[in-house]
Amino acid sequence: MPLYTITCAQDLLDDAGRELLATGITDLHTRMAGVPAEWVHVIFQDFPPNHGFTAGRRADVVAMTLVIREGRSPEYKETMLTALWRLLQEATGAADDQIVIGIQEVPPSQAMEMGQIMPDVADA
Amino acid sequence: MPLYTITCAQDLLDDAGRELLATGITDLHTRMAGVPAEWVHVIFQDFPPNHGFTAGRRADVVAMTLVIREGRSPEYKETMLTALWRLLQEATGAADDQIVIGIQEVPPSQAMEMGQIMPDVADA
Amino acid sequence: MPLYTITCAQDLLDDAGRELLATGITDLHTRMAGVPAEWVHVIFQDFPPNHGFTAGRRADVVAMTLVIREGRSPEYKETMLTALWRLLQEATGAADDQIVIGIQEVPPSQAMEMGQIMPDVADA
Repeated sequence: MPLYTITCAQDLLDDAGRELLATGITDLHTRMAGVPAEWVHVIFQDFPPNHGFTAGRRADVVAMTLVIREGRSPEYKETMLTALWRLLQEATGAADDQIVIGIQEVPPSQAMEMGQIMPDVADA
Repeated sequence: MPLYTITCAQDLLDDAGRELLATGITDLHTRMAGVPAEWVHVIFQDFPPNHGFTAGRRADVVAMTLVIREGRSPEYKETMLTALWRLLQEATGAADDQIVIGIQEVPPSQAMEMGQIMPDVADA
Repeated sequence: MPLYTITCAQDLLDDAGRELLATGITDLHTRMAGVPAEWVHVIFQDFPPNHGFTAGRRADVVAMTLVIREGRSPEYKETMLTALWRLLQEATGAADDQIVIGIQEVPPSQAMEMGQIMPDVADA
């Protein structure tokens, strides 16, 4: 935890593109959250052609969800959202109307990492 | 946002079936929520044979999750769930015991769309 | 509901491995939650090579999210997390630093199963 999931059309990113984005996210997250890089997991989920829609029309939607522990300030989360948007847009070239990002929070007691129930956020 | 994710067995829906369902969801959502159609994203995630289970037995589960902003009334959400169930069942032909739908909420400040942090729900 | 999603590298599990894990999860969940087995859905989502990252490096991350109804005690959720961790690790052979599990809760009124809005948790 955090667990980042990036869902986009297959072939939108190649191996190098995914690695660059995963590295950028991990750098950002560890710097902002003050957690070990080993806690930062990024998974790319591809979808085949004709599996994404915006406004009811086929579209190469780029969706990112991140599951984090509860306890961060609103300012922290807004700063992170804005930085993630930039990283995601640079990596994918997607237009503003094709990107959506959502932060989902879980209480630390409801997450497990490295064989341990997660501790509370340190700098809340 | 909203972000709809429909997870089902590959080959359960074809291109026309996905488009019809995405259009139906988008019409329902824009009508009920009063948001621009451009905010409504629908992604279909296929799984290969033998990747879905109900009651521990292989099954063609049809799961829909939608991530929306906090701020809607319980009545709104129950009406939406019921209407979505009907759309999903019509599109997939899945039996009642193979469908599951969950609405996940995030505070508007934790979501980004069109390059902007999301505004609060207007008609809360 | 519950809806379990297990995301891992394709070829990490074979059909028998998925079935064994789905059965173990279903047994655990029905025993702990006191709900019908027919409510327990498990979906496996594979990702292709080079689609998972930990600490910015390619890795065979094994992520499990479960969406359950709100209303369970912290002790219940911690016991369930620990038992799920063991099942997931036995099934996948993944190291501690490649596994992440998160429990996501939704109000029962925001979930639908068997054609019905979900009832409240019985033993809250």
